[in-house]
Amino acid sequence: MSDAQPPQPFVPKAAISRLSLYLRELQQLIRNGDERTSSTKLGALLGFTDAQVRKDLAHFGQFGTPGIGYRCADLIDAIRAILGTNRPWPVAVVGMGNLGRALVGYGGFAQQGFKITVGFDVDPRMVGSTIENIPVHHLDELAKITAAAGIKMAIMAVPAAAAQQVADRLVQAGIEGILNFAPVTISVPNAVSQVGVDVAIELEQLSYAIVTKLQNS
Amino acid sequence: MSDAQPPQPFVPKAAISRLSLYLRELQQLIRNGDERTSSTKLGALLGFTDAQVRKDLAHFGQFGTPGIGYRCADLIDAIRAILGTNRPWPVAVVGMGNLGRALVGYGGFAQQGFKITVGFDVDPRMVGSTIENIPVHHLDELAKITAAAGIKMAIMAVPAAAAQQVADRLVQAGIEGILNFAPVTISVPNAVSQVGVDVAIELEQLSYAIVTKLQNS
Repeated sequence: MSDAQPPQPFVPKAAISRLSLYLRELQQLIRNGDERTSSTKLGALLGFTDAQVRKDLAHFGQFGTPGIGYRCADLIDAIRAILGTNRPWPVAVVGMGNLGRALVGYGGFAQQGFKITVGFDVDPRMVGSTIENIPVHHLDELAKITAAAGIKMAIMAVPAAAAQQVADRLVQAGIEGILNFAPVTISVPNAVSQVGVDVAIELEQLSYAIVTKLQNS
Repeated sequence: MSDAQPPQPFVPKAAISRLSLYLRELQQLIRNGDERTSSTKLGALLGFTDAQVRKDLAHFGQFGTPGIGYRCADLIDAIRAILGTNRPWPVAVVGMGNLGRALVGYGGFAQQGFKITVGFDVDPRMVGSTIENIPVHHLDELAKITAAAGIKMAIMAVPAAAAQQVADRLVQAGIEGILNFAPVTISVPNAVSQVGVDVAIELEQLSYAIVTKLQNS
């Protein structure tokens, strides 16, 4: 049983990230042949308490049956409805260097509802080509092509020095969500959502863990 | 003035991530010619309260001067000491496809203290080559080479199907920190730290933000 309500404002960002983690574990449970799960089991798989799982889900409605738990397939559908991934999202990639090409060839998005449908670059050797069946256009065509294709989401795989300029063009083109891989902070209007991927931040988590362990051992 | 103490256990993971963000902003302030900052200014740059900034730093000691603030260079040194990035970290990359090659060519790590020094693959066309001056070895040589080079950190840029097997080999080779780009959860012993990068999680943050905005408008 699921009874998803429209997302509420003021849900902590971290709770939204955890929805993604719950979704991944539920998809894994289904692949393992498990039709049902519980907040205790789901939490244990991720190192969270059962209370945390229930609290995160309670932001969005009433899910599952007390004492019985959740049907995995129903909870997957509910979370995808909350995250907006119950319908496909076409995504543009700007910057078709190694990273852009890696993203185009990466299988992990499509199963979550995100499909890279077009690439952009300014390099004349790239423009007009196709990479993994994805056409690469000149950045000057951004607004025209994203508007025609209804693309609201873009991934920036450009050098740091070009990041703000590309972000400005994405905003002008009507893009509403930007995933930025460049190792710099970009400024966008409040109406545009952005998340940054700074891989060094993840490495710093690891170095911290390793040096802390050394100091405590 | 900074008086960094050894990292304490039980610091929230999110606080460690925020240290990385403070570090980035401090580095940007220095580039802008700002020698001093305050918890209020640093928080405002990142959308945090000044109390949040002070609380995060207080886990690790007493920094700055009340009423005056922080010297950016001192706080940078202190945060790098906490994160363990006051000394260079050699890093291995496993999987030299587009993603591995993008990582090797990515400039954002080195300035934070991480240097990719060796790559591994099983593809005979790759093994023995150099990519961006990084030698690529066969995965069978992992333990020998990482031990000789004192490498404790590895990035996995391998397909999902190979991820657990590669993780097992990294653990056997004595790697203590793993950054996993494959879109699957890997199991490693508690003594080994791991962080996963699942780009679809970031995209789900964006789709959530976009659909929530639509519903609220």
